[in-house]
Amino acid sequence: MINIEEQIKIIKKGADEIINLNELEEKLAKSYRENRPLTIKLGLDPSAPDIHLGHAVVLRKIKQLQDLGHKAVIIIGDFTGMIGDPTGKSKTRKQLTSEQVIENAKTYEKQIFKILDKNKTEVRFNSEWLGKMTFKDVIELASKYTVARMLERDDFKNRFKNEQSIGIHEFFYPLMQAYDSINIKADIELGGTDQRFNILMGRTLQKEYNMERQIAVFMPILEGIDGKDKMSKSLGNYIGINEDPDTIYEKVMKVPDNLIIKYFELTTDLHPDYIDEIKKQLENGTKNPRDIKMLLAREIVSLYHSKHEAESAEENFKSVFQRNEIPEEMPALTLMNGESIIDAMIKFNFASSKNEAKRLITQGGVKINNNQIKEFTTLNLNNNDIIQVGKRKFGKIIIED
Amino acid sequence: MINIEEQIKIIKKGADEIINLNELEEKLAKSYRENRPLTIKLGLDPSAPDIHLGHAVVLRKIKQLQDLGHKAVIIIGDFTGMIGDPTGKSKTRKQLTSEQVIENAKTYEKQIFKILDKNKTEVRFNSEWLGKMTFKDVIELASKYTVARMLERDDFKNRFKNEQSIGIHEFFYPLMQAYDSINIKADIELGGTDQRFNILMGRTLQKEYNMERQIAVFMPILEGIDGKDKMSKSLGNYIGINEDPDTIYEKVMKVPDNLIIKYFELTTDLHPDYIDEIKKQLENGTKNPRDIKMLLAREIVSLYHSKHEAESAEENFKSVFQRNEIPEEMPALTLMNGESIIDAMIKFNFASSKNEAKRLITQGGVKINNNQIKEFTTLNLNNNDIIQVGKRKFGKIIIED
Repeated sequence: MINIEEQIKIIKKGADEIINLNELEEKLAKSYRENRPLTIKLGLDPSAPDIHLGHAVVLRKIKQLQDLGHKAVIIIGDFTGMIGDPTGKSKTRKQLTSEQVIENAKTYEKQIFKILDKNKTEVRFNSEWLGKMTFKDVIELASKYTVARMLERDDFKNRFKNEQSIGIHEFFYPLMQAYDSINIKADIELGGTDQRFNILMGRTLQKEYNMERQIAVFMPILEGIDGKDKMSKSLGNYIGINEDPDTIYEKVMKVPDNLIIKYFELTTDLHPDYIDEIKKQLENGTKNPRDIKMLLAREIVSLYHSKHEAESAEENFKSVFQRNEIPEEMPALTLMNGESIIDAMIKFNFASSKNEAKRLITQGGVKINNNQIKEFTTLNLNNNDIIQVGKRKFGKIIIED
Repeated sequence: MINIEEQIKIIKKGADEIINLNELEEKLAKSYRENRPLTIKLGLDPSAPDIHLGHAVVLRKIKQLQDLGHKAVIIIGDFTGMIGDPTGKSKTRKQLTSEQVIENAKTYEKQIFKILDKNKTEVRFNSEWLGKMTFKDVIELASKYTVARMLERDDFKNRFKNEQSIGIHEFFYPLMQAYDSINIKADIELGGTDQRFNILMGRTLQKEYNMERQIAVFMPILEGIDGKDKMSKSLGNYIGINEDPDTIYEKVMKVPDNLIIKYFELTTDLHPDYIDEIKKQLENGTKNPRDIKMLLAREIVSLYHSKHEAESAEENFKSVFQRNEIPEEMPALTLMNGESIIDAMIKFNFASSKNEAKRLITQGGVKINNNQIKEFTTLNLNNNDIIQVGKRKFGKIIIED
């Protein structure tokens, strides 16, 4: 096993919050001393079986924990799925039938082993213990928590305030998934920050049942490739782990520059020290964002396909996209105010005559700022306009007043 | 079977509210047509096994319904007893063990057949169906009701407002007992007005489970013999159905005059027309309250013991109590301001000399307003004071200023 300091460094990478770090250190120290892997819990709601990089954030962290020697217990919430987590939902969810739940769970399971180490993973369905509970057991479980504390949960609080109905059964979602932690004796539970209430309830309940409390590791919510909203299939800003190499590569290249490091931290298994290095290169400009993004894209494709497919995807990307793009550097040309596109083309040596220039334009071979022009008589050129003729010829206009 | 009008007259006797009367009429009409008895539900919480006349109010009404041909299903809440009804409790109740519940239930059962017709009564323990429910069944049940509506229940509302904790399991008390109504297909549920929320939830849930809704018959809360508080063992103002004839008789005689008719309506099975007659006699003064109360006491003792024992109890009461009481009429004597008890005793002919009067007082044979006097030199007599010498001699003082 790797030393504790190093383990903590890896666990902390990209994490939003750990509750709490002291207890985590103690657990790791004990595990190290006794050479006993920790049990890492991840609960999966089988209602969204198409995994994208947003869902994968927690799975990747678990993979890293597995690489550190720990074992994962993935809980497919087939039983809880009958209720559906009300998190973030303003309306009572439709209950899934058990057939739907089982179908979804199968699809889910197939995908998670694209990320996790199968040998260090146990997959459990929570119907295994929840389905056996009697009314009496349920009552005992429910007695461990108060209505007021349950209504502190953001979504319940808001719905209660706004007089939107909360079914009493919905209170059982957090209780059930907390009971999962008791049942598998979880040492660490992973989840998105939107799972804060549920995961902390696991801690509370373990204490009520006289167990050592689990550590909560909260991972941030990953923005989609639009850089605005949470990654989500319905918003169309997602990268699915089942998508083909070219699609993944192209989608990663659309990620805004300000999210590059976050993507490195949350969607790859790269070592924190390596990511720090990249961060420096990005900050001091020794590498440009595009090249770093290509590194990211290659890394992500490698994770879900192969290194070889990642390289092909990069080649394809370059040939299809990069060649059509405007280069970083190009000749600049100073025009006097009033000079036309025709004048500019001759000055740049893009045409040998005014007639040739006009012909090129009418044939559709000329673009201003990536927009094909059809009409040149009324066109005014502006400072910083980029002229492109054919595929390869670029020039930047500087207007002298 | 008796005609519907007459049945309704008897059901309404003493009832606080019936929800609703139209539906009750329909049910009775159908039962009459089909010659099929209605199922009358009474849920008993086995946490208070010593039945008094307050508890007996609903049992007596059920007995009257049995006499009309209907059948009772008494549900001993052995399962719900594990939670305890939070009604009117400001704190979470201690959960009873199943041993305590069973013990209490036995005691209860023994007592209810002092009131009910055993041949028309089925006793069920709700663990029979609730104990078989799985977590899934519980979830389904819980999904039928919302948190907001549950928090409309007075006691929950107050506790929630006052930040007193409500365990989530407490929400199940009303749900469980409503589920009892579904299970036994109750036509009518009886209960005190403090059971309003629970019993109406039975109606709501029956509808959710596509059943005909039960009729709710709410009986008023019976004040104890102090005439102030709800009858309760802990307040000492109760009449237990297991108490001996003399005790019951004496306690009934302490009931304040303004509660006589209510006691007739709620603690006896006398016909409403007969009670109306008594009410008239009381109002127009053709009988005095004491005689009517003796009728009540005799009736109640007859119900729980026998007619013969009731008569003996009345005899005992008369000899022990009535003879010691201050008569309704007695000679009045006008004293001049300043005249003493000694003067008064001579004027009333209670003593032949001042010395005899003094001797009677020092021997403890004289009472003023039922209090034995020991000291006469400093005593001032007041208007309307009653002097009693020995057992039989009474006189009322009128002071002339």
